[in-house]
Amino acid sequence: MNDDTETPGWVIRMSMPEPSVDDNTADKDRLLGCLSRSLGTDKEMMALDLELVRQLPRILRNSNFDIRVSYFKARGTCFLTSIVDSSSDCRALGIAIDLGTTKYVLRIVDLQTKDTLFESSFDNPQTEVGQDILTRIHKSDQSKSNLDYLHNLLIRDLNENIHSMSDSIGLSTQNVTNVSLAGNTAMTHFFLNFEPYWMIREPYIPVANEIDLLKAGDLGLQLSPQARVFCFPNTGSYFGGDLFSGIVYSGMHKREEISILVDVGTNAEVVLGNKDWMIACAGAAGPALEGGASDIGMQAAPGVIDSLNIDPENLAFDLHTIEDLPPVGICGSAMIDLTAQLFKAGLLDFRGKFVPAKQPDTFREIEDIIYLILVPAEKSATGEELLIGQPEIDSLIRSKAAMFTILETLVGSVGVTFQDISVFYVGGTFGNYIDPKSAITIGMLPDIPLDCYTSLGNSSLEGATMSLQYPEVVQEVFEVKDKITYLELNVNQEFMNAFSAAKFLPHTDKSRFPSIYLCFVTHNLSLLH
Amino acid sequence: MNDDTETPGWVIRMSMPEPSVDDNTADKDRLLGCLSRSLGTDKEMMALDLELVRQLPRILRNSNFDIRVSYFKARGTCFLTSIVDSSSDCRALGIAIDLGTTKYVLRIVDLQTKDTLFESSFDNPQTEVGQDILTRIHKSDQSKSNLDYLHNLLIRDLNENIHSMSDSIGLSTQNVTNVSLAGNTAMTHFFLNFEPYWMIREPYIPVANEIDLLKAGDLGLQLSPQARVFCFPNTGSYFGGDLFSGIVYSGMHKREEISILVDVGTNAEVVLGNKDWMIACAGAAGPALEGGASDIGMQAAPGVIDSLNIDPENLAFDLHTIEDLPPVGICGSAMIDLTAQLFKAGLLDFRGKFVPAKQPDTFREIEDIIYLILVPAEKSATGEELLIGQPEIDSLIRSKAAMFTILETLVGSVGVTFQDISVFYVGGTFGNYIDPKSAITIGMLPDIPLDCYTSLGNSSLEGATMSLQYPEVVQEVFEVKDKITYLELNVNQEFMNAFSAAKFLPHTDKSRFPSIYLCFVTHNLSLLH
Repeated sequence: MNDDTETPGWVIRMSMPEPSVDDNTADKDRLLGCLSRSLGTDKEMMALDLELVRQLPRILRNSNFDIRVSYFKARGTCFLTSIVDSSSDCRALGIAIDLGTTKYVLRIVDLQTKDTLFESSFDNPQTEVGQDILTRIHKSDQSKSNLDYLHNLLIRDLNENIHSMSDSIGLSTQNVTNVSLAGNTAMTHFFLNFEPYWMIREPYIPVANEIDLLKAGDLGLQLSPQARVFCFPNTGSYFGGDLFSGIVYSGMHKREEISILVDVGTNAEVVLGNKDWMIACAGAAGPALEGGASDIGMQAAPGVIDSLNIDPENLAFDLHTIEDLPPVGICGSAMIDLTAQLFKAGLLDFRGKFVPAKQPDTFREIEDIIYLILVPAEKSATGEELLIGQPEIDSLIRSKAAMFTILETLVGSVGVTFQDISVFYVGGTFGNYIDPKSAITIGMLPDIPLDCYTSLGNSSLEGATMSLQYPEVVQEVFEVKDKITYLELNVNQEFMNAFSAAKFLPHTDKSRFPSIYLCFVTHNLSLLH
Repeated sequence: MNDDTETPGWVIRMSMPEPSVDDNTADKDRLLGCLSRSLGTDKEMMALDLELVRQLPRILRNSNFDIRVSYFKARGTCFLTSIVDSSSDCRALGIAIDLGTTKYVLRIVDLQTKDTLFESSFDNPQTEVGQDILTRIHKSDQSKSNLDYLHNLLIRDLNENIHSMSDSIGLSTQNVTNVSLAGNTAMTHFFLNFEPYWMIREPYIPVANEIDLLKAGDLGLQLSPQARVFCFPNTGSYFGGDLFSGIVYSGMHKREEISILVDVGTNAEVVLGNKDWMIACAGAAGPALEGGASDIGMQAAPGVIDSLNIDPENLAFDLHTIEDLPPVGICGSAMIDLTAQLFKAGLLDFRGKFVPAKQPDTFREIEDIIYLILVPAEKSATGEELLIGQPEIDSLIRSKAAMFTILETLVGSVGVTFQDISVFYVGGTFGNYIDPKSAITIGMLPDIPLDCYTSLGNSSLEGATMSLQYPEVVQEVFEVKDKITYLELNVNQEFMNAFSAAKFLPHTDKSRFPSIYLCFVTHNLSLLH
């Protein structure tokens, strides 16, 4: 959608009639009158900051009443964020922020041409306080100054990086007028300096699900004094702005067909629906899907195993590492590949237990725990064996079972089946790297045609960018928010039964995974029973 | 209207259901949901400052979700200005400001009980720069720092006086949440730090006629951080917020009968209408009506002549001074009395010329100009004669003629007559002291029954106060503003003819002043021709 510069964006040019004795309304009223006619917005619903009103008479007269205005609107009031002489070459800039727990991405957008001018990714400086969000929340619980510290860390880092990014393309941060931020509920709380204390404690109450367009300066962001910040809304503590951003980017909210969107991580956030209805839920899947439950699990980096294959005939392991360096560990998506490959090779049974008898040299037992020797010592970067223990596989299987049960529960709650789903979006920093075939093989994702699966990339960033390019996207966000039903996952006996049934490879009910079953007919039929 | 504490004001108590797993919306959304149901206002049209959202979770939980909220709404968004535990005895305060050119008046109001807690009047500190508004505007034209200086003078003085007033009644300025300000367009510009340059130059364009509710802090006012300021709107450079305040205070906008409201000063601002329509105009009447054209003219103060009588039989002057001190000068309203009395006594003819022949000792001629000896040297406070020259009377007559012509033009423009008017409000700091009988005698105000004339007192302050007591009053202000038609006084030949005809005492057309004519039949019939 990025190449459509004809669609009106957040910048509008206006040539106004000059004042005369017969047309002598005040400058501000003249401007808002003109703008409200152009935009079809009620004049009462438009606002200029006091400082901009103060500058208005000179801007209007110096430009002969021919100006370019940038504006921003979420719910409620439409704010004018800059006014310049239409002949000025001063660009109004937007900044899209994908505020992740570990990393954040900034993208500078020209609000008029809608072009991306620069993009860069940065470590979230709060990792200094805690790698995971819960550690940070618990720190912030201890004192107001801890919360302030976390907030200020982030704002300072954002300021520095926005500044250096702007510098590098020869633009001033003073030209940044519209900011759009998508993050999970906790990160949005830290950004706004809201106490996350209550959001992680029953009944899990965020400070706010929606916040008006904020003055960037009130948040400490050093941009144009009139810059306004849009934060994507949440629906509760576990369904954050990043998901709304993903939904509008996917377009699933505008299609007739039913789609599903899953953000795979420690929490699985899922939304299902079409243009008429939407239902969402979120549940804990555990850290195993991200590789967090494994001793050698790590994030993508040079030397990390990112894909692998096991020859079904000779059971030889074919590992691939990032930059082809000697292996140091394994990333989350490759753990899913590994589990799938072990299962297909008969080295893992349908209960998810290692089958050392099939190839004894590949396994080692230490203190009653069986380990798979993924990389022998002589081939690893560390000079030590890279081992995967049975408990790590068990953990992954619990996580995949949780994920599948969440999907199953959500789909079942509205009386549709996985077969009714036209597109299955997999998102999240980690989700994008999952091989759907592996995920289906272990019964983590449903057995629907592979071409239904679509990776969304950084959907949070893309949705935030779109909200800076197309005013209607912001409106769509709120339409989606108002339409969406949040299903509280009730972890009752029924859920636990489904979960137990999903703790097998791929599932106790083979009929749910016909493609996997078919595959096994040719290879290891015996393993299924 | 002050005793009606049952009418909902800007303070509301709300007891909310506490959050639960089944009712787990965010704190802010819970609050606004409740409030929007209570007030019947769309939730999207309500806003809390970021800082108040940050404090919200603790306020709600410390109060067991039973709170008292103050709010403020003009057009557009409704702002929450304070939230406290409903059991707290912390009062939300309002401050009504009548911002006059010479003086301003502050009134502290309890927003809940609607009681006035304190009131005081202060000199406008800008008089240091210029007594009259034009001098100040010209100063501000010279540089931005001059404008800033004028603005800061005012804000600093307001802060000091609000602080000392609050202190004296044991309340904190931090409790002030709602401020309502009524002033003329120029003073409102200075208050907002808007350049008044263009408003005094054709085509007379104010920076803004309407301004959203402002954060008090953005204006430099040291009140509650969430305090919001309502400025009464203008309709152009010559019809300011003080007049809208006066209109809503008079209630003329709600009555079936036609009323007229005149603010008498150097400019005469007039509004005519009823609940269905309103028409307004403003015109220069000159400084003479305020005593400004006379050497001995002065504002009310001890020793100033504030009323007088001339015995029609023996032509003896009976002067009254403020505090009964020896006379030092004469105030504007007494100048009107004097002119009326001189005319009735036959000492002034119908052209407004002195008739020294009638009592030669009372007059003196100096360099071809005839002076009335109002107070002989031995009786004055200064030891010098208090003299009124023919030019001063001429000036007053031009002013009264301008005033009458403006009234006549406005009334004529909608095809009604003075006889259709049920109430004639006379307002303005000076207007309140005018004796309507004297004003009718000299033909300044129309000859309608004396009991139609009503003095409004400080209508600007009263209207501002009402806007802090009754939310509907603010709405009415905008209804009036939207309804009112501003008539540009076209000083054409027709106007000049009417003006010339009005430059006689009381008027060339005697039939317009039957009561004066009747009065003269018994006294000085001859003077009429």
